[in-house]
Amino acid sequence: MTEHTSPKRRGRPRGVSDARERIIAAAVDEFGEHGYEAATIRLIAARAGVDSALVHHYFGTKADLFAEAVGIPLRPDIDVPGILAGPRDEIGERLIRYVLQGFEQPEIRRRGVMLLRTAIGSKLTTPLLVGFLSRELLSRVAKSLDVDDAELRASLVASQIAGLLIARYVLRLPALAGASVDELVARVGPTVQRYLFD
Amino acid sequence: MTEHTSPKRRGRPRGVSDARERIIAAAVDEFGEHGYEAATIRLIAARAGVDSALVHHYFGTKADLFAEAVGIPLRPDIDVPGILAGPRDEIGERLIRYVLQGFEQPEIRRRGVMLLRTAIGSKLTTPLLVGFLSRELLSRVAKSLDVDDAELRASLVASQIAGLLIARYVLRLPALAGASVDELVARVGPTVQRYLFD
Repeated sequence: MTEHTSPKRRGRPRGVSDARERIIAAAVDEFGEHGYEAATIRLIAARAGVDSALVHHYFGTKADLFAEAVGIPLRPDIDVPGILAGPRDEIGERLIRYVLQGFEQPEIRRRGVMLLRTAIGSKLTTPLLVGFLSRELLSRVAKSLDVDDAELRASLVASQIAGLLIARYVLRLPALAGASVDELVARVGPTVQRYLFD
Repeated sequence: MTEHTSPKRRGRPRGVSDARERIIAAAVDEFGEHGYEAATIRLIAARAGVDSALVHHYFGTKADLFAEAVGIPLRPDIDVPGILAGPRDEIGERLIRYVLQGFEQPEIRRRGVMLLRTAIGSKLTTPLLVGFLSRELLSRVAKSLDVDDAELRASLVASQIAGLLIARYVLRLPALAGASVDELVARVGPTVQRYLFD
């Protein structure tokens, strides 16, 4: 709050804030209409009436901007490579623990459930989730596997992770909603491990 | 068509058709508002302005009426007991094959995708899918297992089946949408088998 009323910044905050908000709004529209893949920083900048360089300056990469637009402070593009680089026989359990520990945080859960509901509930926004998943999660997992069927393996992992999140946090099936993270990591981790490596 | 214009039935068809349609409409409203568990034949009949006996006469059980209301000609309440009664080491693969073969039929797929989108996309209709799944699939699977954690095991199976259907038919992840039923049965069947029995 003080930042916005600081004499030193007088006259600047409104302009900066307006541009940031216009960019976020343009990103939500652009991602929503065309999906993650088709949306570009250039088109988002044009839509917001600013220069591409300003978008990069405020938000960084397209993945950064998407995370900001969707509002989920869970960053597979940053966190997953670390998990994939760890001990191979722990990757399944570590991936499930990462996702569940994220969703156990109320703010991530709230926005994550909203994103799942929105992306699955509407044809229009489905490509947004698919594009983000494909580029930031599936392709990274697939690239880490040196096999022909890497994309199918990564997609099976995504199907179990999506199903687990939906069953526990959206449908709230009692036995899953009531299980501990450790219990679910022990049960579902080996599935992910088998899809990836068996 | 001839049935409705037969002289013998003259004067009857409109009344029968009206009552059937009123019952279906009342069932959709009742299931949608209160969920599968809370909805009763008695309340649906009252809402439709008919006697409970007439609902049973036209539609049979609550599960029959739900199938009619949702319009999905896939009947786990009828088919799953047969799968569960078959050879134990084939249950995982047979469950996955049953679900995928169902969804490969265009009419089932169309309505199934609609039900998944609707149930996940809206808080209001989520209980409808959850109640149907819980009573007609989960409880049957759980009852067939003679272990303490049967409900958790059955719910993990449901999470993978839901995730697979969503990833293949709603999100249409390319590697999953392009895979054959046999391929997916071979990959996912063992997951179901492990959740149930390991």
